[in-house]
Amino acid sequence: MSGNSIGNRLILTSFGESHGKLVGATLDGCPAGLEISEKEIQKMLDYRKPGTSLITTQRKESDKVEILSGVFRGFTTGAPITMVIWNSDQKSKDYENLKTKLRPGHSDYPAMVKYNHFNDFRGGGRFSGRLTATHVMGGAIARKLLKVTLGIETNSFTCQIGKIKLKKKLEKQMMKLIYKNKVRCPDENIANKMEKEIIKARKEGDSLGGIIESISTNVPVGLGEPIFSSLESDLSKALFSIPSVKGIEFGSGFEGSQLQGSENNDLYTIKKGNIVTKTNNSGGILGGISNGMPITIRIAFKPASSIAQKQSTVDIKTKKITNLQVKGRHDPCVVPRAPPVVDSLVSLTLADHALLAGKIKPVL
Amino acid sequence: MSGNSIGNRLILTSFGESHGKLVGATLDGCPAGLEISEKEIQKMLDYRKPGTSLITTQRKESDKVEILSGVFRGFTTGAPITMVIWNSDQKSKDYENLKTKLRPGHSDYPAMVKYNHFNDFRGGGRFSGRLTATHVMGGAIARKLLKVTLGIETNSFTCQIGKIKLKKKLEKQMMKLIYKNKVRCPDENIANKMEKEIIKARKEGDSLGGIIESISTNVPVGLGEPIFSSLESDLSKALFSIPSVKGIEFGSGFEGSQLQGSENNDLYTIKKGNIVTKTNNSGGILGGISNGMPITIRIAFKPASSIAQKQSTVDIKTKKITNLQVKGRHDPCVVPRAPPVVDSLVSLTLADHALLAGKIKPVL
Amino acid sequence: MSGNSIGNRLILTSFGESHGKLVGATLDGCPAGLEISEKEIQKMLDYRKPGTSLITTQRKESDKVEILSGVFRGFTTGAPITMVIWNSDQKSKDYENLKTKLRPGHSDYPAMVKYNHFNDFRGGGRFSGRLTATHVMGGAIARKLLKVTLGIETNSFTCQIGKIKLKKKLEKQMMKLIYKNKVRCPDENIANKMEKEIIKARKEGDSLGGIIESISTNVPVGLGEPIFSSLESDLSKALFSIPSVKGIEFGSGFEGSQLQGSENNDLYTIKKGNIVTKTNNSGGILGGISNGMPITIRIAFKPASSIAQKQSTVDIKTKKITNLQVKGRHDPCVVPRAPPVVDSLVSLTLADHALLAGKIKPVL
Amino acid sequence: MSGNSIGNRLILTSFGESHGKLVGATLDGCPAGLEISEKEIQKMLDYRKPGTSLITTQRKESDKVEILSGVFRGFTTGAPITMVIWNSDQKSKDYENLKTKLRPGHSDYPAMVKYNHFNDFRGGGRFSGRLTATHVMGGAIARKLLKVTLGIETNSFTCQIGKIKLKKKLEKQMMKLIYKNKVRCPDENIANKMEKEIIKARKEGDSLGGIIESISTNVPVGLGEPIFSSLESDLSKALFSIPSVKGIEFGSGFEGSQLQGSENNDLYTIKKGNIVTKTNNSGGILGGISNGMPITIRIAFKPASSIAQKQSTVDIKTKKITNLQVKGRHDPCVVPRAPPVVDSLVSLTLADHALLAGKIKPVL
Repeated sequence: MSGNSIGNRLILTSFGESHGKLVGATLDGCPAGLEISEKEIQKMLDYRKPGTSLITTQRKESDKVEILSGVFRGFTTGAPITMVIWNSDQKSKDYENLKTKLRPGHSDYPAMVKYNHFNDFRGGGRFSGRLTATHVMGGAIARKLLKVTLGIETNSFTCQIGKIKLKKKLEKQMMKLIYKNKVRCPDENIANKMEKEIIKARKEGDSLGGIIESISTNVPVGLGEPIFSSLESDLSKALFSIPSVKGIEFGSGFEGSQLQGSENNDLYTIKKGNIVTKTNNSGGILGGISNGMPITIRIAFKPASSIAQKQSTVDIKTKKITNLQVKGRHDPCVVPRAPPVVDSLVSLTLADHALLAGKIKPVL
Repeated sequence: MSGNSIGNRLILTSFGESHGKLVGATLDGCPAGLEISEKEIQKMLDYRKPGTSLITTQRKESDKVEILSGVFRGFTTGAPITMVIWNSDQKSKDYENLKTKLRPGHSDYPAMVKYNHFNDFRGGGRFSGRLTATHVMGGAIARKLLKVTLGIETNSFTCQIGKIKLKKKLEKQMMKLIYKNKVRCPDENIANKMEKEIIKARKEGDSLGGIIESISTNVPVGLGEPIFSSLESDLSKALFSIPSVKGIEFGSGFEGSQLQGSENNDLYTIKKGNIVTKTNNSGGILGGISNGMPITIRIAFKPASSIAQKQSTVDIKTKKITNLQVKGRHDPCVVPRAPPVVDSLVSLTLADHALLAGKIKPVL
Repeated sequence: MSGNSIGNRLILTSFGESHGKLVGATLDGCPAGLEISEKEIQKMLDYRKPGTSLITTQRKESDKVEILSGVFRGFTTGAPITMVIWNSDQKSKDYENLKTKLRPGHSDYPAMVKYNHFNDFRGGGRFSGRLTATHVMGGAIARKLLKVTLGIETNSFTCQIGKIKLKKKLEKQMMKLIYKNKVRCPDENIANKMEKEIIKARKEGDSLGGIIESISTNVPVGLGEPIFSSLESDLSKALFSIPSVKGIEFGSGFEGSQLQGSENNDLYTIKKGNIVTKTNNSGGILGGISNGMPITIRIAFKPASSIAQKQSTVDIKTKKITNLQVKGRHDPCVVPRAPPVVDSLVSLTLADHALLAGKIKPVL
Repeated sequence: MSGNSIGNRLILTSFGESHGKLVGATLDGCPAGLEISEKEIQKMLDYRKPGTSLITTQRKESDKVEILSGVFRGFTTGAPITMVIWNSDQKSKDYENLKTKLRPGHSDYPAMVKYNHFNDFRGGGRFSGRLTATHVMGGAIARKLLKVTLGIETNSFTCQIGKIKLKKKLEKQMMKLIYKNKVRCPDENIANKMEKEIIKARKEGDSLGGIIESISTNVPVGLGEPIFSSLESDLSKALFSIPSVKGIEFGSGFEGSQLQGSENNDLYTIKKGNIVTKTNNSGGILGGISNGMPITIRIAFKPASSIAQKQSTVDIKTKKITNLQVKGRHDPCVVPRAPPVVDSLVSLTLADHALLAGKIKPVL
């Protein structure tokens, strides 16, 4: 057991530190015979790359993926696929003077206690959001695997930034618009408002949170294992690994808890010869198992913890109250960078379950 | 890997079926030397027992726990502890005629497809809420283990039924009131309203959902493993195993996603010589690791899927649309029975992490 | 992780104690749709049943298996299959007076230290050979699963008792003779000699060891996962769980280490259109993966530790040297009871790997 | 589950290929606070390095370890430790023309079938003995961890090459002599004979096998988990991952199976106030748990499969019988390179169990 690995048949192991030599991922259990290239993985990494606009951190990380093992002549071999991104633009000195001042909202305090100060504290070390790049390296492969074997597609997008909400329901054709703007919201007007809100927060030395929605289509009936590896259990386990995520709901979720059974039950009907439900309040999962409807998830992100404003805190060494002003280059809102991370973790989980359920074979 | 087991060092395996011979649980990894009796486990089981009031199902299940192994002369031995409840009051015939008519909101359809009709469909079989009794058998032991070793206490209560909400923040002295009423809400007035709401729904042949809140106190700093076994990851994985749960949030959760960093960050201060935070929007978890503040979780339950009203559905055999009226004796609202189940899954997860972190030894 | 469970996709969990209420097994991950009955499991259990002859213990255990879950209308459902044998003929008093006198060769000493005396010491508790009945309950199902899906058959037999050795190579038709005599050796003459040797040892208050050989036929090419889950790794892990096993070799094993490469290499040839090897020094496993030839394993059992002779030992309480005479009813040689246990553990491991390799589907 | 990882609390994941960019290892679960340097790891790697004498392969691999993560300012951080060796001296062309001719004794045939020819076949790919370097990288850290926390020392040495045997019992002072000669046998005379035997086999275009013995001292009482994670189970699982290993025995092993209980039982006595056994036929393990005596293991290696002699084989493409002469630079005997690999796998297993048993804390 290790917190650095996830999955049963398709296992992602994450390693590396924010300000160490690299961040890396080993994807184990990927079927042999999948065509994959660094270019395909890079594309998905680029969607989460910082340094691309005013609304994200100003760090400049090229974030170039390098495949070190497990791919031979363009195809997966069945062996573990190790991929790395060599770190380049860290400014570790920014953190040296924070070493003992606890940054509110960050893992600093519990991490120092847990590891008795042996942990690499620079830039959050293992706890940095930068580590989500390792999920994307693995996720890009899982996403392709699901696409070519089962036609499953996962698309995630921003549906709320601060108090600005996307109220429209996502139509299929809107999927293509997700990456047309910097906030990854498929409605241009709302996207503009969101962007302004983020820029405003940055100016105030503050930060914003938001909500990502994720929709997976073409999921076959029968993924998910009862009881403790229900799809909801394993998807939430994966998604709560993203720093800043503090809430997850499937289908009608928290709102559904206020409805009556007669309102919330999805009635079955026949469509083109297939059994489907008229509504999808279940978010495509019943009894923990996929029912063939789209899997819909909403993921709540807290506002970024690093803010430029002066905050009161404690120095862990002196145990005295002190002030703290976090310098460094931070995201005023991490939500716009999260959709490829969510896509990745959902894809990894669905691919793992497709292997478990025998829907994808160990060799293609 | 199996969906029927959860935990790494403290492993609960659930077995049995709603209408089979029994439901059972094997708790493996419990340290040797813990004093435990059937009576203590029974007490927690009684809190989820149906048949005790108008607001729950009218099935009469005595639900008497029997310890079959792993306890010797009143103490745990370090060997797996197998506990069972023999089933008695099933009326399986109620289900025979439903065999092919898909019950909306239930696992029937995906389960039949997944298991090619070999699954025991009676009363939901493995997917029945009855299986949560297995979690409570294991959870009662985990809860005691946490109490005697670390002083950790988990208390869960109903904070919403349908649209009726408990708005007060829970004070410590209210904990004792949780089981004073049938809905398990520690505010008498609200509890009365909730109860009426449930009775009304029952009369209408309908059902209600709601929200459970769970608070764990005295959790030491440092539980939780980065990245994929964050406390949030593992707690949500455990809690989403409860049928009907469709949303989970920690601390300020979904509401927090609308706040600014300066509002949502919990500032550190010193209290009685200890480092604490002034607020607890993080729900006691930072970077996936406990920070010493109470762990607060909110869990959304959908309205019960079994309703007495006639519903339109599909017959999986004929693939024709048909009507369905679910008979049997069902809960109009499962939320009042859920607090001991939530307590159990939270306790199992915290105890597992306490063992992982070396806070509890393998032998007491 | 737990020492009480084995397997990845097909997981056997063992519970119970030698002198507790029962011994039991939960087999999880068995595909849905396998026809199985208590009678079939009982047949295999009967092969290891004690009390059947002078050469085994005189305890009388009916060892009747009862299936408690996971089988519905004669077929597996995909849910965990829990099976138990209720204990009946324990004479725990035999052990009470031994409580502090360490029995040479037994687990008493390390078990008492490891569990700080909380372990159930009666009859060895969890460490008793009686627990191998739990392996047979699971193994009987695994064996049938392999037979009906892939035609794999595992047969194990006694090839050495003390210094009496079966020197003939086993021919296919000899398989039927294994259970024709009490020592489970398919050569009648050698079997007679072995039996006499055991009776002689019993009379002397002494005990014997021996060697079991196991042959699995029709194993498809490709079972086994590199590197750490090689077939040899997982088979040996399973087989070393049998008390008294102290050595395992595959194919030419220890003898092969004295040969030259040109002698030990199995040369490929074509037979009936299939690629086969002329010899089978590899025991059917190359690089940890099955190569289609029979899997041959030899398993060394130490002589039974419980002997009637007076032995010098230490009292753990007084830390003084003392004498010990083990009463109770013991096997002078456990080897004749071991073939069904070996069959079971080999079958469980091969079935697990067949599921991993996608050779057996999750639903039949 | 993955064959590329081993361990429960201390987990080694191996990646890379013989002729790919690198071979690498991630060691996860190592307690924070252990001082470790590349130099220490290198020392152990150098013991298995080829190209150092006539008795091993003539490939020239510098095999320089590089730590990529998990170590900060000279100490482990609690994060996964990734280490790599960049490949340099591969001559992949040697293998291209063998692509379809099955090399006897190698994994070629089952690997090609299992992976449907997608596997990297060059130099055995994932199945190459070169991958044992990844075990040594992890093992060097585990070995140090055991030394500094519990004083445990594992020493492995060659006790047989072909038919030449070391008959003396190893005395403590001989440990220092293991690496004084090229065959790693602590008796100079025998070592000379062994060396000559290997050189003779090389000249004949043939190869030899042998036996390694491993002794671990200062192991505390109580390591090992019943039933399926007995020390014997987990040690054998680890050791059978070494290519060429075909047999493993503990203590008196196969020879012990010919003794009587009165001969093989190790009688308890008191020595310097401690409970010890007079003999150690159990190899330090009773009931799967360490009893405080040295853990002794003997590991049988088959003769190396790559020989220069012409061999008859099958072409998998044409399915015709053909001749094969393996070129490339091969070890005439791998045994002299195996002691550090055995040390590593034994150390990894013991350290894992020491963590499981709470004998080593998660943070030092």
